[in-house]
Amino acid sequence: MDWHQYLRANGARFQEELLDFLRIPSISALPENASDVRAAAEWLERRLTSAGVNEARVLETGGHPVVYGEWTGAPGKPTVLLYGHFDVQPVDPLHEWETPPFEPTIRDGRVYARGATDDKGNLFLSILAVEALLKTAGGLPVNVKFLLEGQEEIGSPQLGAFLAKNKELFGCDVIVSADGGRLGEDPPALIIGTKGICALSIDVRGAKSELDSGIYGGAVANPVHALVQILGSMRGADGRILVEGFYDDVAALSEVDRERIAVAPFDEAAYKQQLGVEEVFGEPGYSTLERAWARPTLEINGLWGGFQGEGMKTVLPAEAHAKVSCRLVADQDPQRVLECLTRHIHAHTPPGVRVSVTPHPGSSRAYFVPAEHPGNRAAQAAVEDLLDKDPYYARLGGTVPVYELLQRELGAYAIAFGWGSNDEGQHAPNEFWRLKSFELGQRGYCILLEKLAEMLPVGAAPHA
Amino acid sequence: MDWHQYLRANGARFQEELLDFLRIPSISALPENASDVRAAAEWLERRLTSAGVNEARVLETGGHPVVYGEWTGAPGKPTVLLYGHFDVQPVDPLHEWETPPFEPTIRDGRVYARGATDDKGNLFLSILAVEALLKTAGGLPVNVKFLLEGQEEIGSPQLGAFLAKNKELFGCDVIVSADGGRLGEDPPALIIGTKGICALSIDVRGAKSELDSGIYGGAVANPVHALVQILGSMRGADGRILVEGFYDDVAALSEVDRERIAVAPFDEAAYKQQLGVEEVFGEPGYSTLERAWARPTLEINGLWGGFQGEGMKTVLPAEAHAKVSCRLVADQDPQRVLECLTRHIHAHTPPGVRVSVTPHPGSSRAYFVPAEHPGNRAAQAAVEDLLDKDPYYARLGGTVPVYELLQRELGAYAIAFGWGSNDEGQHAPNEFWRLKSFELGQRGYCILLEKLAEMLPVGAAPHA
Repeated sequence: MDWHQYLRANGARFQEELLDFLRIPSISALPENASDVRAAAEWLERRLTSAGVNEARVLETGGHPVVYGEWTGAPGKPTVLLYGHFDVQPVDPLHEWETPPFEPTIRDGRVYARGATDDKGNLFLSILAVEALLKTAGGLPVNVKFLLEGQEEIGSPQLGAFLAKNKELFGCDVIVSADGGRLGEDPPALIIGTKGICALSIDVRGAKSELDSGIYGGAVANPVHALVQILGSMRGADGRILVEGFYDDVAALSEVDRERIAVAPFDEAAYKQQLGVEEVFGEPGYSTLERAWARPTLEINGLWGGFQGEGMKTVLPAEAHAKVSCRLVADQDPQRVLECLTRHIHAHTPPGVRVSVTPHPGSSRAYFVPAEHPGNRAAQAAVEDLLDKDPYYARLGGTVPVYELLQRELGAYAIAFGWGSNDEGQHAPNEFWRLKSFELGQRGYCILLEKLAEMLPVGAAPHA
Repeated sequence: MDWHQYLRANGARFQEELLDFLRIPSISALPENASDVRAAAEWLERRLTSAGVNEARVLETGGHPVVYGEWTGAPGKPTVLLYGHFDVQPVDPLHEWETPPFEPTIRDGRVYARGATDDKGNLFLSILAVEALLKTAGGLPVNVKFLLEGQEEIGSPQLGAFLAKNKELFGCDVIVSADGGRLGEDPPALIIGTKGICALSIDVRGAKSELDSGIYGGAVANPVHALVQILGSMRGADGRILVEGFYDDVAALSEVDRERIAVAPFDEAAYKQQLGVEEVFGEPGYSTLERAWARPTLEINGLWGGFQGEGMKTVLPAEAHAKVSCRLVADQDPQRVLECLTRHIHAHTPPGVRVSVTPHPGSSRAYFVPAEHPGNRAAQAAVEDLLDKDPYYARLGGTVPVYELLQRELGAYAIAFGWGSNDEGQHAPNEFWRLKSFELGQRGYCILLEKLAEMLPVGAAPHA
């Protein structure tokens, strides 16, 4: 029996196991679910053991636990760290779920449950692939380690310090992440970059209390006007960011980068219709996908000041507030960008008001893996073998801080090998996963491990 | 007993009645307070009746009601229309009030409550003066009518049509207004001009729903940025208004005008300290008082869009809103200014968003009464008699649209005879009124009616 046959022969059991795993309400954000997060970790420890790895254990981080596993019986072969997370998002608004989030239900070839696609289903794929290879070939083509965490949905607060203390245990040549990926889409996409983030609040204060704009209008600075002036100075009418130094460390898009983005499927008419806008808008000289995937952004996420009620109230407000966030690309440093923003805001504050700038916690650098990285090439080859389709290279405008964290702490690149699609309701009610992706993903991971054995040099990462 | 003695003998009762009146939350701007506005009208109808007038009734306007009263037992004497308003401004931000706005509280010789100075307290003065004269002299030196309205704070939307239909009922030789006045200050001031007003809402819409700024940031227009750009184009960093055509009809200040303003008492250091600002700010080439009293203004009264909660939420908002008002001077036409503003906003709306501009009802031209008008001279004489001080001529940066409306509909000039001070928190939290003004104002109104009987010709106004 080869692994293909093994997967087919055990498909019904694997699906039952997936449903079992999805029944555990491992919501990391809610203290009352902490024991469920731990139960999911223990479920994985048992499941790794039954898959046939040499070692599987639950490790403490100070927060939600990590599950470690390893099979290192392939001397001279590269070591692959398989990453995924077994915690899930909260489920509110609960009433919008057609079936309960922790009672997984199969309808129309999809399994509906919280965590189905993000990330329990995807995480499970690598365990099944390892089992199929071990039970049929008696070993794996590469050495394998598992890093399965339980706090990704709350920003992995303890993971950095935990990995810093356990660098050797998790040492590897490449990381393969089951989180963040679009291999379940048609055409399939390999994610090679995610943006970083930094954010701050701007608070402008004028007179010590709200004034009558009749009595004081025109004679005392209005903090709302001051805020408008500050914000207006940060981004030009054409969408270009005017904060001095903001673009200094931005790695320019190469011709190859631009070609890779140009071949990605994108239908502007459908995009505009989906959003209900008549025109797209953004930094001159770039396409919509380039703007969304590969250029840094500055967006006002919220602002307010003065009267917001019905009708009118002729006040001169005492304060005005804005929240601004930037999505960053390589090689921007969030701290340096926050410094540029703060300096710019102070330099553009008009007289008669006081301004304060408060950076938000949770900054992150962008993550980027070269498309040519042997891990990526192996992933591409695996997808081609499996689907007879060449995946295109995509990027995420959003932020997945754990990629950058893994690279920083372990010194290895992370390759996205997730079998989700953009439309599967991640973080929303009625999250689902396509059973087709469950089946393809198992085979995909088997082939990927074979391709990595061929294509990835030992010592690809300094810490290996 | 003369009226002086009567006022003294009944002072404690009058104060209790004032507190009763202030307890009615007659906020005209909020639909849920409509019955409170009506309750205040009914309170006044009863109070006028108990003061001894011939007639008092609540009249319907189609909106908040008007209270009419009259005593016309002085044939051959001029007719004085006593004007005031019993509606009040909203109270937000409620948390800034030291004591609740509708639980009037006396501290340090002041009564703190919404409406204390604007305008319930001042309105009440004329009723008490009329009562004191009627109960002691058995009659008044002039004929008196009352026009007490309940929609001044929302721009008196129905009052014009109402007066047009009731010209005869309200016919008079002069109007004396309890709203807008600084006779409570030292030195006392007679208001001879008020600014006009026009206001509008700007609503900017982008995509049909809020978006994730990670996925769509930089690629789709952000309506908050668009609003910032529009608002930023309307006023320069130096405070000058940049809307094309805005200054076209502004009557330049004459040398006499500027001299009258220059002799008005003004202490810039105290002004800044009172407001808690380090610098004054406004249109170049004018003094603070000129800016506040005699130059047109444009102020953002409120704006909002996107996330306003704690922490950060990386959204790209779907809409953004602002409320803007302009204070106008002679000879600006509010309709023409609204047209200039609307044209400017559309011309400065960037691509990718839709904007709508909604003028608010309640526009008004500026009002100006010659300093030499006999009504003004009578007021001046009354103040001199009472305080032994010559009042200076002041203007209001604020708008009392009803002055211009009364003049237009009734053909009579309105004289400001209010006993407020500039620092009493009109339209703001912790509004208060000095009890000293309450006491002086009662006597002031008694003397004013006597002076008007002497100095005002019958037939001063064409409609009398």
